[in-house]
Amino acid sequence: MVLVRQEIGDVLRDFRLQKGRTLRQVASKASVALGYLSEVERGQKEASSEILASVAEALDTPISVIMREVGDRLAVIEGLSPVPDNVPDELVAEYDPSLAVR
Amino acid sequence: MVLVRQEIGDVLRDFRLQKGRTLRQVASKASVALGYLSEVERGQKEASSEILASVAEALDTPISVIMREVGDRLAVIEGLSPVPDNVPDELVAEYDPSLAVR
Repeated sequence: MVLVRQEIGDVLRDFRLQKGRTLRQVASKASVALGYLSEVERGQKEASSEILASVAEALDTPISVIMREVGDRLAVIEGLSPVPDNVPDELVAEYDPSLAVR
Repeated sequence: MVLVRQEIGDVLRDFRLQKGRTLRQVASKASVALGYLSEVERGQKEASSEILASVAEALDTPISVIMREVGDRLAVIEGLSPVPDNVPDELVAEYDPSLAVR
């Protein structure tokens, strides 16, 4: 089962790291507990829409940018890749099985 | 504050109606309570990732398709329209202030 919270967590962490911020900085700016944000990033807790909005704001990233990235990653997981894929699946699987279309 | 659950609810309802299904049919197929699904569609309840996956499956729609539509609608709300916008903002604001870029 493909879980949305897993991708949301990954995307939030990736955006945070891209911006060179610590969990502590983002949690503080978003007024959420550090442990809670950490669990959200690891896909262990569902973030409410209010928390998502606060964290997105703390990351200076529109929530739409985050959710589109989530949608794109889910599409890759579901084999509905967002970009035209011209590489034969066999070759992809050979080099990186985790990227193979299921 | 832009709330993700509001868009998720709207998208789930729109996909359901597009497919000509009733709340009862989808709730039953997804094994969720009818009242709960109704609240999710109205943006009043957060759906867990497991429930989202079940409802998406009951709608025969990949969860990535649902989440990308959510992302696109959030982008419109945030004025980051997913499609090139050739209409001058002043004109948009004149005809429908709710669509004006903030």
